[in-house]
Amino acid sequence: MLPSPVDIREVGPRDGFQNEPETIATDDKVALIDMLARTGVRRIEVTSFVRADVIPQLADAREVLTAIDVPAGVARSVLVPNMRGLESALALRGRFEEVGVFLSASETHNRRNVNRTVDESLAELAAVIRRARAEDLRVEAIISTSFGCPYEGRVARARVLEIARRLTDAGTSEIAFGDTTGMANPLQVREHFAAASEALGDAVQLTAHFHNTRGQGLANVLAALEAGCRSYEASFGELGGCPVPAGATGNIATEDLVSMLHEMGIRTGIDLPALIDAAAAARAVLGRPLGSHTLVAGPIDWRRSS
Amino acid sequence: MLPSPVDIREVGPRDGFQNEPETIATDDKVALIDMLARTGVRRIEVTSFVRADVIPQLADAREVLTAIDVPAGVARSVLVPNMRGLESALALRGRFEEVGVFLSASETHNRRNVNRTVDESLAELAAVIRRARAEDLRVEAIISTSFGCPYEGRVARARVLEIARRLTDAGTSEIAFGDTTGMANPLQVREHFAAASEALGDAVQLTAHFHNTRGQGLANVLAALEAGCRSYEASFGELGGCPVPAGATGNIATEDLVSMLHEMGIRTGIDLPALIDAAAAARAVLGRPLGSHTLVAGPIDWRRSS
Repeated sequence: MLPSPVDIREVGPRDGFQNEPETIATDDKVALIDMLARTGVRRIEVTSFVRADVIPQLADAREVLTAIDVPAGVARSVLVPNMRGLESALALRGRFEEVGVFLSASETHNRRNVNRTVDESLAELAAVIRRARAEDLRVEAIISTSFGCPYEGRVARARVLEIARRLTDAGTSEIAFGDTTGMANPLQVREHFAAASEALGDAVQLTAHFHNTRGQGLANVLAALEAGCRSYEASFGELGGCPVPAGATGNIATEDLVSMLHEMGIRTGIDLPALIDAAAAARAVLGRPLGSHTLVAGPIDWRRSS
Repeated sequence: MLPSPVDIREVGPRDGFQNEPETIATDDKVALIDMLARTGVRRIEVTSFVRADVIPQLADAREVLTAIDVPAGVARSVLVPNMRGLESALALRGRFEEVGVFLSASETHNRRNVNRTVDESLAELAAVIRRARAEDLRVEAIISTSFGCPYEGRVARARVLEIARRLTDAGTSEIAFGDTTGMANPLQVREHFAAASEALGDAVQLTAHFHNTRGQGLANVLAALEAGCRSYEASFGELGGCPVPAGATGNIATEDLVSMLHEMGIRTGIDLPALIDAAAAARAVLGRPLGSHTLVAGPIDWRRSS
């Protein structure tokens, strides 16, 4: 028996927008987030508080967070790389409910991404998590390259779970295991979530964050479901991605995920046609075809008859 | 334990090329088929003997079949819609080893596709199968809309299996269940192949033919593997498709399928880099981006290290 309902966190406004070659106008971001917030999705990662010279696409984090109009019951989350990012975000404390922090499971990826060893990141994030908890914010920690690293290859599962344990001990409520460059396969995913569930039990929410780099994103979702995973991250339109490998596609498309789950009788609380409308609006803003399949094909219509 | 090795039949030269808006030059088709035939794939659907006014893209079936240079051990198959198509193909009897025939599980789809009732198609195909078997050809029968019909919605599993049984009794060696417009979901697929295996046992080879219409193609492969299915059809580059729904993508990409299977330790006999080269050559001929993910991202390289 597969879990139902499952929890879906929409990460397109952060993970997607930050990877676009052209910066998106703040008004367009706000309009797209407001559309997403009315699809039934309960959690949206709306932006990130990073240095504008590092990620200019999200330099308008304050403006976006101030302008969006999200119904009650939809949690807004912001990503912060460090304590300085958290302090910047806290200037708008009433405008969000959740904080995301991140590091990589592999030393090389972490070094290239945040210029720290994994242990240094863990020490810094523990302080960030404590500070966020003191502000009554829910914290999610994302472990990138959990299923493989483009620089180091395989990452030992024991190491990934040790990192997850330390983040849990520091007070995070949720761990997202990220397949950052699309190296995961379904057998690995099933074993991973079974082991994570065994190691961490009910101490923390376990979340799957897959990319569709080699078309295997939803197969990995199926494997995670089979291992009991109840929480998934996805990006509307299949926005997002990673510079490695060059040209590769991004996160799994939220509308492809929702279509498959609903077809399997798994509830998400999301209105698929409304979600497709939001992805179509993103496509219009970006002015290019997006990777999402259901955006093109539409929902399956079982009511048709000749 | 998932099955290994699995059998993959490349259908791009027929299912893919026939759906291209521009007709591909015969020389280009021949060069692409010759490349595919050197990737380790053991079975290729090379063309179809249909009326040129109905499918002008495959009007060069005789020329293609005559010109291709396929190593020993690679089975060439041709699709035929009826006895007349088979007779046309038999003029080149020494140039192919397998014949494919097809019908739809739903009456409306079959009527629109071949202007016959399903029972009329079954009667005609039984004669075609007998004639092909008398020529010592292996026969595969494809049942389209096995998992849902865009006109009628759900198709009763008992009806699909009854059609499969009648085709088996007529002498076909293989039944491919086609998800023609991408309506299948993994739970349905797992139940379907378990039921088909129970109903038809070892009397016939059971094959899965999925489309990636809503991004769920490889998830359906995983479900079919879990039900013990050992045989899959796919199209290099994710070529192919179906006019319903408009603009939808096609078959699952052979290179995405092979990447996922190899990552799970399932053998295919196919050289993934060589297959990607063939898909890249198809992209160059067609002059447009293709849907395949692994074509863009490349194979996973686990040997990398910092």
